[in-house]
Amino acid sequence: MPRVRLNYSVELTYEVCSPAVFAFNVHAAQTDQQRILAEHYEITPRRISRLECESSTGNRVLRVEVDPGPFRMTYRASVELAPHFTSPDAIGSNAIADIPIDAFRYLRTSRYCQVDKLTKVAWFEFGQMERGYGQVAAIRDWVQRRTVFQPGSSNHGTSALETLTEHSGVCRDFAHLMIGFCRALNYPARFVTGVDYGAAPALGPPDFHAYVEVLLDSRWYLFDPTGITIPTGLPRIGTGTDAADASFATIFGSVRSGMPLVEFFADNDPANGIGLPQPTLLAISLAQA
Amino acid sequence: MPRVRLNYSVELTYEVCSPAVFAFNVHAAQTDQQRILAEHYEITPRRISRLECESSTGNRVLRVEVDPGPFRMTYRASVELAPHFTSPDAIGSNAIADIPIDAFRYLRTSRYCQVDKLTKVAWFEFGQMERGYGQVAAIRDWVQRRTVFQPGSSNHGTSALETLTEHSGVCRDFAHLMIGFCRALNYPARFVTGVDYGAAPALGPPDFHAYVEVLLDSRWYLFDPTGITIPTGLPRIGTGTDAADASFATIFGSVRSGMPLVEFFADNDPANGIGLPQPTLLAISLAQA
Amino acid sequence: MPRVRLNYSVELTYEVCSPAVFAFNVHAAQTDQQRILAEHYEITPRRISRLECESSTGNRVLRVEVDPGPFRMTYRASVELAPHFTSPDAIGSNAIADIPIDAFRYLRTSRYCQVDKLTKVAWFEFGQMERGYGQVAAIRDWVQRRTVFQPGSSNHGTSALETLTEHSGVCRDFAHLMIGFCRALNYPARFVTGVDYGAAPALGPPDFHAYVEVLLDSRWYLFDPTGITIPTGLPRIGTGTDAADASFATIFGSVRSGMPLVEFFADNDPANGIGLPQPTLLAISLAQA
Amino acid sequence: MPRVRLNYSVELTYEVCSPAVFAFNVHAAQTDQQRILAEHYEITPRRISRLECESSTGNRVLRVEVDPGPFRMTYRASVELAPHFTSPDAIGSNAIADIPIDAFRYLRTSRYCQVDKLTKVAWFEFGQMERGYGQVAAIRDWVQRRTVFQPGSSNHGTSALETLTEHSGVCRDFAHLMIGFCRALNYPARFVTGVDYGAAPALGPPDFHAYVEVLLDSRWYLFDPTGITIPTGLPRIGTGTDAADASFATIFGSVRSGMPLVEFFADNDPANGIGLPQPTLLAISLAQA
Repeated sequence: MPRVRLNYSVELTYEVCSPAVFAFNVHAAQTDQQRILAEHYEITPRRISRLECESSTGNRVLRVEVDPGPFRMTYRASVELAPHFTSPDAIGSNAIADIPIDAFRYLRTSRYCQVDKLTKVAWFEFGQMERGYGQVAAIRDWVQRRTVFQPGSSNHGTSALETLTEHSGVCRDFAHLMIGFCRALNYPARFVTGVDYGAAPALGPPDFHAYVEVLLDSRWYLFDPTGITIPTGLPRIGTGTDAADASFATIFGSVRSGMPLVEFFADNDPANGIGLPQPTLLAISLAQA
Repeated sequence: MPRVRLNYSVELTYEVCSPAVFAFNVHAAQTDQQRILAEHYEITPRRISRLECESSTGNRVLRVEVDPGPFRMTYRASVELAPHFTSPDAIGSNAIADIPIDAFRYLRTSRYCQVDKLTKVAWFEFGQMERGYGQVAAIRDWVQRRTVFQPGSSNHGTSALETLTEHSGVCRDFAHLMIGFCRALNYPARFVTGVDYGAAPALGPPDFHAYVEVLLDSRWYLFDPTGITIPTGLPRIGTGTDAADASFATIFGSVRSGMPLVEFFADNDPANGIGLPQPTLLAISLAQA
Repeated sequence: MPRVRLNYSVELTYEVCSPAVFAFNVHAAQTDQQRILAEHYEITPRRISRLECESSTGNRVLRVEVDPGPFRMTYRASVELAPHFTSPDAIGSNAIADIPIDAFRYLRTSRYCQVDKLTKVAWFEFGQMERGYGQVAAIRDWVQRRTVFQPGSSNHGTSALETLTEHSGVCRDFAHLMIGFCRALNYPARFVTGVDYGAAPALGPPDFHAYVEVLLDSRWYLFDPTGITIPTGLPRIGTGTDAADASFATIFGSVRSGMPLVEFFADNDPANGIGLPQPTLLAISLAQA
Repeated sequence: MPRVRLNYSVELTYEVCSPAVFAFNVHAAQTDQQRILAEHYEITPRRISRLECESSTGNRVLRVEVDPGPFRMTYRASVELAPHFTSPDAIGSNAIADIPIDAFRYLRTSRYCQVDKLTKVAWFEFGQMERGYGQVAAIRDWVQRRTVFQPGSSNHGTSALETLTEHSGVCRDFAHLMIGFCRALNYPARFVTGVDYGAAPALGPPDFHAYVEVLLDSRWYLFDPTGITIPTGLPRIGTGTDAADASFATIFGSVRSGMPLVEFFADNDPANGIGLPQPTLLAISLAQA
């Protein structure tokens, strides 16, 4: 596979009604497989900001105090992805005794992935299968088959348990349901945010996206239960137990939000070994455990 | 205040039906204000075990693989507490801009503390009060006033939202409701486990306990919304976003559990400056942010 | 009080995609205190329809089978209201032993009024008050004080339990919450639909409305927890345990709905003893038990 | 099929703590296919009681006011069942246009059968099947296959939505889930109570039972999704939208309940054409619409 170079930009606009604090998580993640070639952010009007790394997630968070009035935050990054590709057959599943202690939090029940309430369905549907990548892929396919991608059909309170019976949602709902099932079957699974580059034209222009990483052997493998992206073309931003941990913008204060503007561009420079994202049957990983 | 020396022991017995993995979190926490003088654990029958520290919580987790048959884990510790005491009036509240990034996870909605669903009630009930220790104490008192301590009235699926309307629960339910309200008002708040030394005789012998720490200024202050303990006498074990993060025993496999046996003893040695836990109106903290 | 003559019309338009059955409940109720002076309905295109009275509710239901294509149903009625007015002080509360057996269904837990989950809050908030009209009015006022009338803040799945914590909703949500509390305190309470004549101009033109009737002594007294209407000016349509029983249109089939058009006009003819609806402190009833 | 004669008795004991009102629904139903040969009830200590028929359900309700102290209610009945048997193939399904208006309430969403939240699953699982008895039987079998009969695994607040994911419950939970799915597919379906005569010895002695009736053609056909009874041997007591409508004892006041004692005996008198209940593949109905 050629390397992939992805460029994305985000423009977030607000009308701030009272002094507010914003904590943005739109900065590209840094992993062994995702290198940042360049990035730039700008805050208008100019304000002192603080870019920090949250230790429990590794997310890069930009905090800004803002006065009332219009406010804009823009971010641009170029990242190069050199995913770790593996044949699904070659991937084993961790014995629980070998799961790293810091992955235990991705086994736990959480606000949007109520593992405790999804366990019976998970074992009924998937419990007879052999453990490993194939079982996880079967979960992904099951979620995709039952769930209709339908903007507006869910909201910020929607959890996996509701998606299970509503059969519709947006990317975060697909991810929550898949994560809930994976954890119920003792796979550490986490929520990942990135940018959907608009591969499914019917779903509109590039936008924020959410998908899933599951720990198998000693790597986090990427799964997109929506099926609307080419997973090799997703620049990774944040991770966490569920959407609560990886919000693009956490806002304290009274604010009116504009529509986010997300742009995406993949370089195509075969001469330099850079190609467009391609579909693959291989397992894809951007991060070690 | 004199120093306090607390001794507790825990005996957990199981009948293991299939090969299982246990992850115990009963080891005393180590903080600047809680020193471990001695501790000892034993696994019967003997098995290789691994004691690790989870980095996102600091919890000390003992992992053991166990074969079918009877299984017992015992733990004993002596800890010395030198809490940081402050007059409530002298404690300010962090501006959101100053909350450490690693405390942000304690502001988020979680499985048992659904902040997103408790926000309206929190602001209706407490929104008019001045920020600070007094507001947090008012939340504690509100929860205590409405909620009846009633073993058996809740279960492992019970969340703050249910405790809010059911008006009954056990210590973890009181803690979840208080935490939910605190976070809704932008106080980082976390779930803490320890040992309840049986100060409320009607509630029976010493047992595991759960309570709350709230970040104010740069310290985590301790609150027990059940009102059944003397908070200066609580040896701290684990912390986390909610009960999901701080279970005494996480069990993978088919297991029948016996009743946990918890013992507790506070030293009383005035000649050496060691006294029994005393009630206090001061704010108590065992940990810095 | 002068008598009141109310005229309302309803126009419901649809685009029917597959053969469908409609069951409308927009016909004015007939009670001793609400006489129908004239009514008319029309179905376009012409179809055979059936007007029936549901025996458990007394609701008048018009059933129509419709072929694909545009479809319109219009209804117009003139009703004269001669409510039974009583001084709240003169109204007692039924002993449970005296509640008519057919009112028992209005004591039960229902889809949108989960009495079983609201009982603790009901007794905590209102349990110390004397039984009777005053206690019921206190429930109405409590609901009104906490809840913001906000179209779009709830949906067809929203129940009393959610309104209790969300603090917002539309008329049906206010009604469900009040009903839930009343039943928890052993008052038979039912959901009532009518037409809101637009007394609160900020909330827009006349529209369907939902409110509450509570059985006290041997009459159903009317309460509007939204506070946006003059209750003497509400023409009554349907009743039931909750919104599930009294939907304006129950549709079987694939259909796109237009915006309902509701018009309302109150006669003012003092020479004939007909006046406009007036606010009153008296208790109002349109129906005996 | 021979006729069936069933005798059952119920003994309910209480310790009444404050003046209380009881409304019992343990009297056998009277239908064209279930004749009451004899019945007797007794209240100890003697109290005036009132036996009424609730018009919306036809349930026979005995109301008693009771003073503090021990209280016992016993009831005994002999009923003869002459069910209407039909070949499943000969049963059609009502067009919605032909469902009697008074069966509409059995299409609606209710407290324990949240039709609105079960619709997507119902159509996904059963939507491709032909309408009729076979589709309803498929729902029954699906519920039975997924759900474990497990006393103690549910409580009085448990609804169909929870049974769907918990995969366990008691008879009322099985019934609620089946009812929810049937209504979602536009079959009027109602909750029925009776006596389980202990055909499944592992589940213990005779006890109250709950099952389902579904309207097909112009009859209510009986289905027992638990699979633990012979449906021809169930004496029918009450019906309703769900368990809220058909409680064996509704109690107003502070009361401690003893264990109900239920006895059951089926006559076997072949000489007179009376036989024991037999399994059958025919559809069984005890009531017309």
